[in-house]
Amino acid sequence: MTTIWLTGLPSSGKTTLARELTARQSARRAVEHLDGDVLRREMFPELGFSRDDRMENIRRIGNLAVLLARHGVLVVVSVIAPYRRARDAVRAAHRARGLSFVEVHVHASQAVCAARDVKGLYARATSGALSGLTGAGDVYEVPNAPDVQVRTAEQGVEECVLTIERALAATERRDKEALV
Amino acid sequence: MTTIWLTGLPSSGKTTLARELTARQSARRAVEHLDGDVLRREMFPELGFSRDDRMENIRRIGNLAVLLARHGVLVVVSVIAPYRRARDAVRAAHRARGLSFVEVHVHASQAVCAARDVKGLYARATSGALSGLTGAGDVYEVPNAPDVQVRTAEQGVEECVLTIERALAATERRDKEALV
Repeated sequence: MTTIWLTGLPSSGKTTLARELTARQSARRAVEHLDGDVLRREMFPELGFSRDDRMENIRRIGNLAVLLARHGVLVVVSVIAPYRRARDAVRAAHRARGLSFVEVHVHASQAVCAARDVKGLYARATSGALSGLTGAGDVYEVPNAPDVQVRTAEQGVEECVLTIERALAATERRDKEALV
Repeated sequence: MTTIWLTGLPSSGKTTLARELTARQSARRAVEHLDGDVLRREMFPELGFSRDDRMENIRRIGNLAVLLARHGVLVVVSVIAPYRRARDAVRAAHRARGLSFVEVHVHASQAVCAARDVKGLYARATSGALSGLTGAGDVYEVPNAPDVQVRTAEQGVEECVLTIERALAATERRDKEALV
């Protein structure tokens, strides 16, 4: 099956889109939403936000996604995943097992994300209470060639989700044809 | 679906039985083998062998099993899981989601396990190079009422696996009837 990985800045809208996508797709097939905040808290609380720890966090969540996807589950991941190399490695891990991978760049400008500031992280970064926030001190490597980009400042949730669903269908059709 | 948890001393035969069971069952349905040594190395390398860390290790592996089992996968877990309370909590987590849980006590005496010593752990414990090994310094709480017990010093691999498969079938039949 397939993993859909939503990558983007904090407050770009990853979790919101992942929840809506999961709800819509679960009417049709087995779906699991893996959320970065939840997994850090429940499964990998030892990992911090250094480059090494972020790389490792992405690797582990990628392995969880593979574990589920290879049993026919559609996996929706909402994790910042700021490094190209880490995202590419997760894609490679999927492809090596014949699984599809859809990289979704959830785009919103840093200014828009900081204004939303759903979890108050940008405010804490500005006041100096938090260091190393992605997009406010720490790097976010914008995807060069995502399978799809959605722009949450200009598009509503439904439009974004429909765009992702079209990319999902196209990817699964292409990968299926490649297997024939 | 169902999780089959093989609990027992180091070198009691858990991984051997889990591999054989996984191979046999995978001809019939989706199966995933979760092995304690592999998961500690790949997913939770920060966890050690204190009581708290072992409890946490069992909790996390239990959550992984639930994640897979609720998508129809038969999950075969080979993890020492020395504490009754932790095993019971994993069972409860499955039952709360309508999933079946089969606790298998893989029995062999401490003397037999120490003589096998597949990974050389008992030798290291005896020489003082390793402390806190389950069965050689650290507690193993024998299951009071496992769904099935296999005795690997007296039974061969095939006989043990057939015994587990009978318990699996009985549990799934019972849980299915309870749902009607």
